[in-house]
Amino acid sequence: MKFLHAMVRTADPQASLRFYCDTLGLVLLRQRESAQGRFTNYYLAAPGQPEVQLELTHNWTPENYAGGRNFGHLAFGVDDIYASCERLRAHGVVINRPPRDGWMAFVRSPEQISIELLQNGDPLPPCQPWTDMPNTGSW
Amino acid sequence: MKFLHAMVRTADPQASLRFYCDTLGLVLLRQRESAQGRFTNYYLAAPGQPEVQLELTHNWTPENYAGGRNFGHLAFGVDDIYASCERLRAHGVVINRPPRDGWMAFVRSPEQISIELLQNGDPLPPCQPWTDMPNTGSW
Repeated sequence: MKFLHAMVRTADPQASLRFYCDTLGLVLLRQRESAQGRFTNYYLAAPGQPEVQLELTHNWTPENYAGGRNFGHLAFGVDDIYASCERLRAHGVVINRPPRDGWMAFVRSPEQISIELLQNGDPLPPCQPWTDMPNTGSW
Repeated sequence: MKFLHAMVRTADPQASLRFYCDTLGLVLLRQRESAQGRFTNYYLAAPGQPEVQLELTHNWTPENYAGGRNFGHLAFGVDDIYASCERLRAHGVVINRPPRDGWMAFVRSPEQISIELLQNGDPLPPCQPWTDMPNTGSW
């Protein structure tokens, strides 16, 4: 497994980019806009360290981030997302967002930090019990 | 500059270590106890990626982490912490914890995420205006 990124939500992406890039010295690697999802993601990294990223998420629908939702999640890449989720489940961890797509899952740590798991490389073929497993709670 | 670690506060380090190490697959690299500071830090990383760490902080004095204080900060290593702080200040950023020791500083991002700056290598010699600058606010 690998550490991939930390995600931070922002209500003002230009202010955040000024801070992280112009002021702090990170580099904007790429940005991705989803009109359907009504969000824009910005991927930043320290110069020469593109494999460890800070992901800024701008949800177009305004939200108040004062109380703890400003921090998003820690993301880890794993070699077999089904095996990882099975191991989490065996330890009693709720799979809040099951890997129905063979690619992405979310759980909560004991400190209620959102943890994102992403399949390394291509997504795995969909398989049970994950395909039919609904979301649980929030993450 | 380099990304160094994400920090997460935990009220129950054993539960957190079970989750991150036994269940998720991170490795405990080292731990550091400060009787004076009444805290224990645990440094975790993905196997083979020791340079990007998850720092668990257990403050011995119990605290409620439900509302947003569970996430600690993002940390970046910099080549000249005085130059970094001067640039932040020139952009209007408050240096909440000035680098009086030539080694460590804290600021807040526009999303109110705590950002830790750590001098790469040895601390720099103390110098003004930083040596006499008091802390401002919280971080």
